[in-house]
Amino acid sequence: MASFDLITGNAVIGQSGGPTAVINQSLVGVVEGLRCGLQASGHVKRVLGMRHGVRGLTKGEFHDLTDMHQDVLDRLAMTPSAGLGSTRDKPDKAYCERVLEACRKHDVRYFFYIGGNDSSDTCRIVREMAVAIGYDMRCFHLPKTVDNDLKENDHTPGFPSAARFVAMASMSDFMDNISLPGIKINVVMGRHAGFLTAASALARRYDRSLNPETDGVSTDGPQLIYVPEVAFDIERFLADVDGIYSKKGRCHIVVSEGIQDKDGVAIGAKLIKNAQTDSHGNVQLSGSGALGDQLSDLIKEKLTPAGGKPPRVRADTFGYVQRCWPDASIIDRMEARRSGRFGATLAMRGEMDGSVAIKRPGTGSALWMGTDNGAPYVSEYARVELSAIAAKTRHMPEEFLLGHNNVSKRFIEYCLPLVGELPSFERF
Amino acid sequence: MASFDLITGNAVIGQSGGPTAVINQSLVGVVEGLRCGLQASGHVKRVLGMRHGVRGLTKGEFHDLTDMHQDVLDRLAMTPSAGLGSTRDKPDKAYCERVLEACRKHDVRYFFYIGGNDSSDTCRIVREMAVAIGYDMRCFHLPKTVDNDLKENDHTPGFPSAARFVAMASMSDFMDNISLPGIKINVVMGRHAGFLTAASALARRYDRSLNPETDGVSTDGPQLIYVPEVAFDIERFLADVDGIYSKKGRCHIVVSEGIQDKDGVAIGAKLIKNAQTDSHGNVQLSGSGALGDQLSDLIKEKLTPAGGKPPRVRADTFGYVQRCWPDASIIDRMEARRSGRFGATLAMRGEMDGSVAIKRPGTGSALWMGTDNGAPYVSEYARVELSAIAAKTRHMPEEFLLGHNNVSKRFIEYCLPLVGELPSFERF
Repeated sequence: MASFDLITGNAVIGQSGGPTAVINQSLVGVVEGLRCGLQASGHVKRVLGMRHGVRGLTKGEFHDLTDMHQDVLDRLAMTPSAGLGSTRDKPDKAYCERVLEACRKHDVRYFFYIGGNDSSDTCRIVREMAVAIGYDMRCFHLPKTVDNDLKENDHTPGFPSAARFVAMASMSDFMDNISLPGIKINVVMGRHAGFLTAASALARRYDRSLNPETDGVSTDGPQLIYVPEVAFDIERFLADVDGIYSKKGRCHIVVSEGIQDKDGVAIGAKLIKNAQTDSHGNVQLSGSGALGDQLSDLIKEKLTPAGGKPPRVRADTFGYVQRCWPDASIIDRMEARRSGRFGATLAMRGEMDGSVAIKRPGTGSALWMGTDNGAPYVSEYARVELSAIAAKTRHMPEEFLLGHNNVSKRFIEYCLPLVGELPSFERF
Repeated sequence: MASFDLITGNAVIGQSGGPTAVINQSLVGVVEGLRCGLQASGHVKRVLGMRHGVRGLTKGEFHDLTDMHQDVLDRLAMTPSAGLGSTRDKPDKAYCERVLEACRKHDVRYFFYIGGNDSSDTCRIVREMAVAIGYDMRCFHLPKTVDNDLKENDHTPGFPSAARFVAMASMSDFMDNISLPGIKINVVMGRHAGFLTAASALARRYDRSLNPETDGVSTDGPQLIYVPEVAFDIERFLADVDGIYSKKGRCHIVVSEGIQDKDGVAIGAKLIKNAQTDSHGNVQLSGSGALGDQLSDLIKEKLTPAGGKPPRVRADTFGYVQRCWPDASIIDRMEARRSGRFGATLAMRGEMDGSVAIKRPGTGSALWMGTDNGAPYVSEYARVELSAIAAKTRHMPEEFLLGHNNVSKRFIEYCLPLVGELPSFERF
């Protein structure tokens, strides 16, 4: 226990951005952490949930979590999507002033916000404003994103569960593809980071890291994986598909919704009719099948043999179900819950602010160093500066990529412990 | 045991059409049924799996299942999609002659085919041809289709698992929709029958059969359900959406990929660029996001208030994962396995042909009569004529529909026992 003085007042907790299967675990973790910490010590009087994040906070819309029964908390933790409601609002200075004003009005002394790098930035700005006017309010950020793109984190709550869905959907869909052969494209979430798309490689059952270019054509799908970190070239893509389809009579492909051309322009953003832009300036990529359909159509046009029949081509976009599927990864459930509790612990030990980061011990950095020494998977929690996370994006490191259309064995070893046990299939 | 003479020779088993999560259960059921029946009695020598259905059979491509280890069979049964490979070939008379020729060549005396109404038709034609030339080969059809559109069946193996996926995806996606409000469209498989789309109503947690028109707007999603059995009218659709969105600020919609206009033309078929047609004359509806995107775009265009911002609209198409998701319904697993065993039993008791149908006892017909008397769910298996199934399509009965955009309580009671336990969510 640090020697800081603890302040007495209320606590608020909010959820922000795209929901996940375990964002309520983080919420419940904070509530539980406060209960056995600052609430037990009398420093926290009421624990107030913001309805739809800072948007509800500024309107005084709360859901009181102070006396919530443990049974309700446990059910809430197992419920996907943001139980308090979420928001896409990106608070600017004026907005953050209204946030601070609302906090003062409700005697809020502890501010917890669960979200991605923008939510960390909101925490940072609000904390700085509070300091500037001498109002003692401690601000903590809890990590959440299926994109897995937060700096300083080995991985982020939400990602393992979405990766589990993508792996299971890819496994199953590959069995469908060998059952009724053709060319199949699956589009996976991920605006700037390819981690979630890369998780499709866990679907491979013989050797998950076979590279079609150097090891011959993998019999296992997906055979081609395209992430935003590698510039996407249409001609090279068509050649890749042709190369596998002409040998195997089928081809199983996964592309990230955020794949970009060499100038960094998202291919998908140009395809959605009347695409919508959120307050963060992000052009809509999800909630449309346009990218998959366009690639599908291109293949039909370009890979039809002269005078012959076009190949059977189908495209699916996994959609929102990948971030809210209720069968969450066990590791993800535990880690999201514990990261919430750790956030409450930070406040209890007198920290003024900070973001909770998940580390894999023995790595010395946010970057994974391998578990292939036979050591069991372990994770731990650390406080990092809000500014180290705020408004920054982490990408797939080079060591996770293999060529322009595959992922490395290191990525497989990084990702596999996170998703939990996968089903076992029989294949002739 | 009937007094018929049993013939001695080999057995073939094939899988046809779109795969499901439990089509391998049916396959394993036949293998097990033969083992303890005709194989034990010495009437069946080899049990040969057709690679890719009748296509492989005509080429003599088999996977020998005779001595397969029970561990392998059990894993195969739990593997989604057609383990032997499937085919979309629709055999005409000449094709069926080649099938019969191949059967004679390999001394096949028992022919089992797992599939939908076209597979039943193949059985019927091949059997008639065999009878005509005096070749004793007994032909049996095992039901399979996620569309649930086979006559004489209360429901068909494959449907309960797909319905389970649709219910769970709809539940979870609805939580996403209330978390970040907007208009959400989900497109579900089903060319001519709306059963699978209707299963989304199981996502409702308070009253699954609330009708927005007569009971006020349901707080539970999906609020609007459109099936192929009811003519789809764009203007009425937009008015439905507007009615709910203007009251709730959000709207959760499920449409079948096969929704048709009043002239019976599928809305989706006109939208897919270079849409592909299979040998059954079916124009591609799956493997594209075009229908959802088109409806999404229409809503953005038509429901934007004058001078105002368009509503947030997103569309997902559940895609192939709904028919191959590995977490199959427990009931479905059992019933598919048992329907396969029952098929082998039909052969053992000296039947010459037939299709296995699943009945719900006490109904006296294929149509469900309700389980709301508190009786536990029970199903049983019956032999029906191949011609009663062959090339016929069953639609949602009137009693399962409610208005033009909802399903009835009777449908909920019909469907609920099939999907198995659904997760329990907490909602504020």
